[in-house]
Amino acid sequence: MTAPSPAVPAAPAAADVLDRCRSLVRPALAEAVGRLHPWVGEMASYALGWCEVGGAPVAAPGGKGVRQALAVLGAEAAGAPGRAGVAAAVAVELVHTFSLLHDDIMDGDATRRRRPAVWKAYGTGPAVLAGDALFALAVETLAAAPGGAAGVRLLSAALADLVRGQADDLLFAARPYLGPDRVRPEAYRALAVHKTGSLLGCAAALGAVLGGAPAATADALDRAGRHLGVAFQIVDDVLGLWGDPAVTGKPVHADLRERKKTFPVLAALDSPGPAARRLAALLESAGDPAEAAALIEAAGGRTAALAEARRQVAAVRAALAAVPMAAPAAAELEAVLDYLVGRDL
Amino acid sequence: MTAPSPAVPAAPAAADVLDRCRSLVRPALAEAVGRLHPWVGEMASYALGWCEVGGAPVAAPGGKGVRQALAVLGAEAAGAPGRAGVAAAVAVELVHTFSLLHDDIMDGDATRRRRPAVWKAYGTGPAVLAGDALFALAVETLAAAPGGAAGVRLLSAALADLVRGQADDLLFAARPYLGPDRVRPEAYRALAVHKTGSLLGCAAALGAVLGGAPAATADALDRAGRHLGVAFQIVDDVLGLWGDPAVTGKPVHADLRERKKTFPVLAALDSPGPAARRLAALLESAGDPAEAAALIEAAGGRTAALAEARRQVAAVRAALAAVPMAAPAAAELEAVLDYLVGRDL
Repeated sequence: MTAPSPAVPAAPAAADVLDRCRSLVRPALAEAVGRLHPWVGEMASYALGWCEVGGAPVAAPGGKGVRQALAVLGAEAAGAPGRAGVAAAVAVELVHTFSLLHDDIMDGDATRRRRPAVWKAYGTGPAVLAGDALFALAVETLAAAPGGAAGVRLLSAALADLVRGQADDLLFAARPYLGPDRVRPEAYRALAVHKTGSLLGCAAALGAVLGGAPAATADALDRAGRHLGVAFQIVDDVLGLWGDPAVTGKPVHADLRERKKTFPVLAALDSPGPAARRLAALLESAGDPAEAAALIEAAGGRTAALAEARRQVAAVRAALAAVPMAAPAAAELEAVLDYLVGRDL
Repeated sequence: MTAPSPAVPAAPAAADVLDRCRSLVRPALAEAVGRLHPWVGEMASYALGWCEVGGAPVAAPGGKGVRQALAVLGAEAAGAPGRAGVAAAVAVELVHTFSLLHDDIMDGDATRRRRPAVWKAYGTGPAVLAGDALFALAVETLAAAPGGAAGVRLLSAALADLVRGQADDLLFAARPYLGPDRVRPEAYRALAVHKTGSLLGCAAALGAVLGGAPAATADALDRAGRHLGVAFQIVDDVLGLWGDPAVTGKPVHADLRERKKTFPVLAALDSPGPAARRLAALLESAGDPAEAAALIEAAGGRTAALAEARRQVAAVRAALAAVPMAAPAAAELEAVLDYLVGRDL
């Protein structure tokens, strides 16, 4: 008999990683939500996808739980057991739910995950209150955790970024497509860092901090999450313009109809040549979205967006490679990264 | 010549105490608001009464700043200089402003301090965002302060109470005046503690904690603030029914028209005898408010409310007397107490 050759571990599947982390976090998340006023708690459970209006439980899960997974993996990357990151996971999931809930009010979005948004289901006033409750619960949960003081500082910085990003998002919609007041790709990147990257980075860094990681590891995870947010947002923009609506789950060209200043649009408008000017005229007059999508591609918007997304993913990998991390967590972080931005980017 | 007899210090005037504390806190509060996104910062400044829509400064001050004063006096009660309580003062003033702002959205109140409410002036979505920004800024400010970790725990408990109180306030409006589902005076007291008392208590306790007070002092100040909140709320109810609108600044009987379950109403409905039943019928049919006010008085609602307010004020004084406090701060706390609930209660 010969000794077996050392097994090469298979790459972990992102769905398994997300499932494992959700299972680990769910009891603490449910316990926190259970401390809320019963009426507010029902709205929170609805927003999390756990129940229908009236409180009847639903079998279908809510979101994928990317942020809670990053918090758990952040703790594991620091060599701690995943449960060390659970308070961080609960806090970031509550903050994420809060921000979706209030953003839907501000943006007038009536649907979230194929169900009526909370403000549509319960009314605007109660939805404002439910968001406030989730926000307060996040801070309370983190403040009560061992090592939570540093965590609250990280979380409150991410919250400030979220507000800043949402403010710019509301203001960008009113800006013109051309001229000195137009939104430049750099401003888009800052917006994406604030709206998406800051909480992704905060999730992983918070988990690491509660897991006892040195500051350099937490900083690297925070940086990785910020780049990941930009990459994710740009990939989302590309899918919104040229993706399959059956896969993306949102109507094709919805972003164009809502006059969203997405990266491919901004990059196309920033390009020299006639396509950019024709595109601007078409967008200003709210012309045919299919024609706009073709012009964006002709002006190099798609190519520029994918190149920028690749640069951001490279920056994620560089940040992760810069610090030592426990091997299983590093592989699982990589799996979540691939899941979020696509394996073939 | 005879030696002058020792001067008995004059009781400090509440207006002077509030002015002094506002002057001490204002630079730090302005600095914090200045860190916000400019557009959000303008809404925050408007909500604080510092500017008009568009940003033009106003000379008239905003609120009296009772909560910020309690934070400063809490630090001074602990023997620390008032500036030790400034971060606490900034945090509670931001939280108070946040809660007024979001409550006006939920309650549909179009006017605040004789100006359009923020949601009327800037729109509902932006007002939601401005409230979120104030909330995040409060947590950020406190988390960054020396000793802020314990402070964040206190503040997040008060925030949870605020949400709970606002939830009950929204639900109480729909409850009947009579029968097993009616709101009882005990439920009113709990509501008043949550909506008003918790932040008043938190303000003084936070200041004390940042001023290095022992836990017993912070607890006593917290307890005093909670009773103060109930007393203040009941006095406000009594003034709303029988006060001079020129002094209270709100239209007479507005609470009755909004079907508010105020303490005098609940106490009257809880009394035995025919006046309670006639009152309930009148309120259910939204009859003449002046007649309702007379029935509330006849059923003992006014007497019961003033007696309850006196009991709450006695509880404030008992809490304050239970722990040693630096003398000037104790006298100034007493002045603020008299200012809030009336010297002759």
